[in-house]
Amino acid sequence: MRILHVGASGTLGRAVAETLQARGHTLIRAGRQGGDIAVDITDEASVRAMYAQVGDFGALVATLGRVHFAPLADFSRAQWQIGLDDKLMGQVRLVQMGLAQVREGGSFTLTSGLLNDEPIRQGASAAMVNAALEGFVRAAALEMPRGARINLVSPTLLAESVPVYAPFFPGTAPMAAREVALGYVRSIEGAHTGRVLRMGWSLER
Amino acid sequence: MRILHVGASGTLGRAVAETLQARGHTLIRAGRQGGDIAVDITDEASVRAMYAQVGDFGALVATLGRVHFAPLADFSRAQWQIGLDDKLMGQVRLVQMGLAQVREGGSFTLTSGLLNDEPIRQGASAAMVNAALEGFVRAAALEMPRGARINLVSPTLLAESVPVYAPFFPGTAPMAAREVALGYVRSIEGAHTGRVLRMGWSLER
Repeated sequence: MRILHVGASGTLGRAVAETLQARGHTLIRAGRQGGDIAVDITDEASVRAMYAQVGDFGALVATLGRVHFAPLADFSRAQWQIGLDDKLMGQVRLVQMGLAQVREGGSFTLTSGLLNDEPIRQGASAAMVNAALEGFVRAAALEMPRGARINLVSPTLLAESVPVYAPFFPGTAPMAAREVALGYVRSIEGAHTGRVLRMGWSLER
Repeated sequence: MRILHVGASGTLGRAVAETLQARGHTLIRAGRQGGDIAVDITDEASVRAMYAQVGDFGALVATLGRVHFAPLADFSRAQWQIGLDDKLMGQVRLVQMGLAQVREGGSFTLTSGLLNDEPIRQGASAAMVNAALEGFVRAAALEMPRGARINLVSPTLLAESVPVYAPFFPGTAPMAAREVALGYVRSIEGAHTGRVLRMGWSLER
């Protein structure tokens, strides 16, 4: 399948790209640092130019999105906007602007994270943005054209990120990025739509 | 208890205000149309001026917030921003700027709505914003000062709104605003924090 992968150069993105290629998919890589195409997901014109270059596609995968961390009382308007403009509306923009080019039965797979289910101090923006993506995906699934689908992968703490982020996530069992990548396979090759695929060990409910 | 009620003049707000007054609370009413204080929740300076006038308070209740409805493919950047700036960040702003003045053990109670749990066509922004408020409240509960609490009431379709909105909500059992108001009582007088109080009849799960 022809897959447009935005954010393929990140820690998670690299593992997702390797997994999808190993399953025989053809990837077009886009991202801030380039790849096949350089794109700024906060910029409509940049996203439009990317899609003009790509043409039609079977799946869009987004594994990127910035969000700011700070004590609740300290957040500035600009700091809230980072998560809203980038991780949230950047991914929403990828979906909305890709609607006209997704193939019959194709899919969109976005990325959130565990901080909505398991909030941490200084994580109010991340929790808000991750939750917003869940709501968006559930609702957007009702309005997909031509049998297209949309899902959200919510990764837990990545094993690869433990050296940097573990102190913020006491008691969280990390998962290797290549295991989290299975969520993207399930979304792309499965029949789900409007689903949140939580990729983590300890989120019993 | 001294309660600052923002949005007391709306359909839900009036019922919440009556219920809280009947339980002996003292209300300071604020809103776009005035009340005791005129406030624009999208404007930091306006919210700051409101809090300067109010002084300390036992509870903040927000029963307002605008959001745009449109087909997913048609949303403009400005239309997405309505929900993000007003219903989402307007309520977040009320919390953040009120942190310094909430009394020991006081509370913040915000309002979302059923469209995150039960999405409808043209409701992608509403679902996103309602979900974002859930994530925010869960995370913000971890950073409340002086034992303060924060909860979210998620009302179903109001009986009072049936004449206007029922066509958008097939199969949804409406609830009278005075019954939804009980969620606010539970949040203000109860011990919950970080909770989403779903006020509706048909949301079995």
